[in-house]
Amino acid sequence: MKKRDTAPKEGGITRKPFPKSKKVYVQGKLYPEIKVAMREIELSDTVDAMTKKRTPNEPVTVYDTSGPYTDPNMEINIHKGLERIREKWILERGDVERLDKFTSEYCNQRLQDKSLDHLRFQLKHLPLRAKKGKNVSQMHYAKQGIITPEMEYVAIRENQKIDEVRRLAKQHKGENFGANIPEYITPEFVRDEVARGRAVIPSNINHPEAEPMIIGRNFLVKINANIGNSATTSSIEEEVEKAVWACRWGADNIMDLSTGANIHETREWIIRNSPVPVGTVPIYQALEKVNGVAEDLTWEIFRDTLIEQAEQGVDYFTIHAGVRLRYIPMTAKRITGIVSRGGSIMAKWCLAHHKESFLYTHFEEICEIMKAYNVAFSLGDGLRPGCIADANDEAQFAELETLGELTKIAWKHDVQTFIEGPGHIPMHMIKENMDKQLRECGEAPFYTLGPLTTDIAPGYDHITSGIGAAMIGWYGCAMLCYVTPKEHLGLPNKEDVRVGVVTYKLAAHAADLAKGHPGAQHRDDALSKARFEFRWEDQFNLSLDPERAREYHDETLPAEGAKIAHFCSMCGPKFCSMKISQEVRHFAEDNKVENDEVVVKGLEEKAKEFKEKGSEIYL
Amino acid sequence: MKKRDTAPKEGGITRKPFPKSKKVYVQGKLYPEIKVAMREIELSDTVDAMTKKRTPNEPVTVYDTSGPYTDPNMEINIHKGLERIREKWILERGDVERLDKFTSEYCNQRLQDKSLDHLRFQLKHLPLRAKKGKNVSQMHYAKQGIITPEMEYVAIRENQKIDEVRRLAKQHKGENFGANIPEYITPEFVRDEVARGRAVIPSNINHPEAEPMIIGRNFLVKINANIGNSATTSSIEEEVEKAVWACRWGADNIMDLSTGANIHETREWIIRNSPVPVGTVPIYQALEKVNGVAEDLTWEIFRDTLIEQAEQGVDYFTIHAGVRLRYIPMTAKRITGIVSRGGSIMAKWCLAHHKESFLYTHFEEICEIMKAYNVAFSLGDGLRPGCIADANDEAQFAELETLGELTKIAWKHDVQTFIEGPGHIPMHMIKENMDKQLRECGEAPFYTLGPLTTDIAPGYDHITSGIGAAMIGWYGCAMLCYVTPKEHLGLPNKEDVRVGVVTYKLAAHAADLAKGHPGAQHRDDALSKARFEFRWEDQFNLSLDPERAREYHDETLPAEGAKIAHFCSMCGPKFCSMKISQEVRHFAEDNKVENDEVVVKGLEEKAKEFKEKGSEIYL
Repeated sequence: MKKRDTAPKEGGITRKPFPKSKKVYVQGKLYPEIKVAMREIELSDTVDAMTKKRTPNEPVTVYDTSGPYTDPNMEINIHKGLERIREKWILERGDVERLDKFTSEYCNQRLQDKSLDHLRFQLKHLPLRAKKGKNVSQMHYAKQGIITPEMEYVAIRENQKIDEVRRLAKQHKGENFGANIPEYITPEFVRDEVARGRAVIPSNINHPEAEPMIIGRNFLVKINANIGNSATTSSIEEEVEKAVWACRWGADNIMDLSTGANIHETREWIIRNSPVPVGTVPIYQALEKVNGVAEDLTWEIFRDTLIEQAEQGVDYFTIHAGVRLRYIPMTAKRITGIVSRGGSIMAKWCLAHHKESFLYTHFEEICEIMKAYNVAFSLGDGLRPGCIADANDEAQFAELETLGELTKIAWKHDVQTFIEGPGHIPMHMIKENMDKQLRECGEAPFYTLGPLTTDIAPGYDHITSGIGAAMIGWYGCAMLCYVTPKEHLGLPNKEDVRVGVVTYKLAAHAADLAKGHPGAQHRDDALSKARFEFRWEDQFNLSLDPERAREYHDETLPAEGAKIAHFCSMCGPKFCSMKISQEVRHFAEDNKVENDEVVVKGLEEKAKEFKEKGSEIYL
Repeated sequence: MKKRDTAPKEGGITRKPFPKSKKVYVQGKLYPEIKVAMREIELSDTVDAMTKKRTPNEPVTVYDTSGPYTDPNMEINIHKGLERIREKWILERGDVERLDKFTSEYCNQRLQDKSLDHLRFQLKHLPLRAKKGKNVSQMHYAKQGIITPEMEYVAIRENQKIDEVRRLAKQHKGENFGANIPEYITPEFVRDEVARGRAVIPSNINHPEAEPMIIGRNFLVKINANIGNSATTSSIEEEVEKAVWACRWGADNIMDLSTGANIHETREWIIRNSPVPVGTVPIYQALEKVNGVAEDLTWEIFRDTLIEQAEQGVDYFTIHAGVRLRYIPMTAKRITGIVSRGGSIMAKWCLAHHKESFLYTHFEEICEIMKAYNVAFSLGDGLRPGCIADANDEAQFAELETLGELTKIAWKHDVQTFIEGPGHIPMHMIKENMDKQLRECGEAPFYTLGPLTTDIAPGYDHITSGIGAAMIGWYGCAMLCYVTPKEHLGLPNKEDVRVGVVTYKLAAHAADLAKGHPGAQHRDDALSKARFEFRWEDQFNLSLDPERAREYHDETLPAEGAKIAHFCSMCGPKFCSMKISQEVRHFAEDNKVENDEVVVKGLEEKAKEFKEKGSEIYL
């Protein structure tokens, strides 16, 4: 079933810009060389139904994860990889050195293997590493009061032209979540959040191609898309396109969870062409190296894998260091035991050796590797519940407490850290997860898979989990790991990735609205205004998936004329509530009503006139 | 575009039973003639991986809305209509009379119109009406202490073999919402809830075909599917199949929102063949009768429409009687004005006439009609917000307060009543809606459309709204009106209806779990156990959409053998966490561990043995 791996072909990458959208680049102030990419959506004019007077609508700027692919002025060659926008920033800090060869033994074996030449990305750069005694993590800089270009970049990116937001958001109603969201997200605010450990900027010094982004609960809620081949299906080519595709629809991060052959080479292609940070679960590859026999894993093999991946440019590692020997029997009475792959691998290792896992016992050594490349920890929830019945149990919470201890150790090393969370949780038990995570882990960002709020809808688990994701995002979760419709059933194809990403993007946005992020509601308002004014094209173009919206509209009313029609297929021309409502507004506005008495008076005067006009203000 | 209406053909109706499912009928105790239909899903045996010992899994019984269509032993002829299961119960109460002709003038015109013969359902029964001075509403009986067959029916239906639930739900964790959910839902509990107005059993005496169901927050959360043709698309045939199809996937109610031609005839076909209660918005048809000119509507035309529909058997009417003249100007400054069709029609009428609407001024006369047929009120939210920016505003809440006043008037007449709710509401403002509704409307059931939690995802509004629906269901909303992926864009086709219904069913179920309904979690547990034990067929069959689950699985692993494989396409055979976890469980169970010390000791002893066995307990 598995296709033979080869180097990806050029044409397989989606580059089409979104309709009526163009890339705009906002320059930095502290660092004028910074150019933060955003997407500007051009809108058509509002046409007054009676006077035909045209009023222009300002373009709407939105957060853009799609990278240079959607900029037609950018040359893209996936065999060369993306522009290395952060390289100069990294080198100018003066704390890194270019190695003369890769450190990982395994990496060097693969590079020397001629049989892989046909599928290899042609590397042009040797890896960077912190100079001896240096720490290149963003947290380290932040704690010293240094605002890095990465920090200014994310500050600009989060603001999304906040002046425009202010102008548009006349009726902003969000709660100010935790009272921590500043009116302007400043570079200094970013630095402070990173220094406190409340936010993470995943940005390996060997992945200078990625556009910086920030994960923390006082910022926009982010989403992650998992890609990666498995032993049974998909090719390198498909995975690279899947990565670009996921970013196109809104993935803020991707995780490469490949478990099949050629993991090393696949990852290289993905990282060199990814405009967003890339995470991995290194134990998957380590297990491949010991032919899938968990008991044969060793710290040495794992360590070599960490370095191999860190020098390729992986931005964060999921490490299940919280699966302690004593917690494993707590899962025995569960309905679904251990459902995390990493968790079950480590559980098996622990049982076989009757030892604490090497991830736990070597944790400080792992920190030393992380800080030499600025890899962030994603502390894995190996004991997360796999069904509603197992939610919030002893095993899950015991591990979370250990993750809290490990967070403090990571922070001692200034290593950026976030915490993975469940899983399958009924709605009334979600908040307890968030509250406990913040308490145990010193407010380190939480990164959850869903959670799924029921087990009974395989095929629709993007939705069962989108419900939980939106809720936990509102409660303070910083990043949501997407779930596709294929969850529990099969590997997602491109359409599943799109549906999963858009579902999570809307869940994250719903959470931003509920949190009261000042950069959130302007897009809703602009879209709703377009809807009310029958600006169909604008409604499509402002939506998270303009192509799908247009396709659905055109299914019942395909004619181009229907897209300027003042009605739609739901009610037909005579019945349209929007149309009637516009008439009501015109009528009421003429009255300039202030209170009940005036209303009654005004309406009395106007009622006759309204009927005389034929009771139809426009058709 | 509109297809020419004709009587539906027989073959167009979906009847296929769900896989491994059979209808079971549970007999009443108070009324032994009651037979409550449920669906029993047969499960395969659990096979112990080591000993190969087989342990049978008891079948799982689930709530079934699909009606006789999925019972292969039932003869179905849509030209005759469904069996009139409630007719005997109604007649035996002795408070109704069979009319010798239809009361509605319009109805009689239609019946006499020869040009409609080819598309007419052949009526076999004249309508029933309460005898003079009698009140046939379920609330009226309930207040007098009478437990009707309908009440016993819903009590049995809600319990879903609660003994089985008790047996399975070993780890039940839900909150007891409002502490009002009894361990057994008794007929007396049902009666009491209906008498208090906290629950409604929509059951027009002229729709005896429908299987009784209950709407109230101390019962399972229900869902409604809207169907109905519009001026631009779809035929009678399609609408009848859409109704059956919606029930198949889980609709507890349907609303016929037709606005095109032949509304009267379409409705007859739907009601005669609907196993669930049917609601309408009578103002839509009234408006057709005045050629779409809202100002030409009169109380007399509306009254005739109510009677026409009540005698056909409509179970509940959405009536926007809360749109008061003085509230209309409050919508003028909204981004999307009035988005309810009924609301905007009445607003236009009020403005044109400068009068309170006839729905408000004639409310008590409407109550007189409702109680003569046991039609329930669905008090419409004509001023619901149409976008995030308009949520929870003055207009919306002013109308809700009026709906509270009207509820009390309806209850004075013992007319069953529930209240419609929004709309578009960001997550943090949802609970305020529920709390205010309960307070203002004396705990009458709430029935909401979504709410949508963001405006920016047209094409995915089943999901933006499924999030809000699950949350408000948890907070106490009794019924959720579905939203399909086509919302805001076009009319739903069959696939959209399926996706909309399943999405809302999972949202309602997530709410039931969070409320702690005792009949909810056993299905999750059974499915998760099947998943853990790689009983793929059982996992599909227990899911809300078995066909979709199987289809997605087979997309990557189509071979029949894959459905008994102890792995899936996500991780492949070597990596499966479920498989490793089962090994861990076997291992830990052998140790019979109690506390940390024993764990360590037990594991020490077993570690060596485990390795000696080859570290693989089974393949």
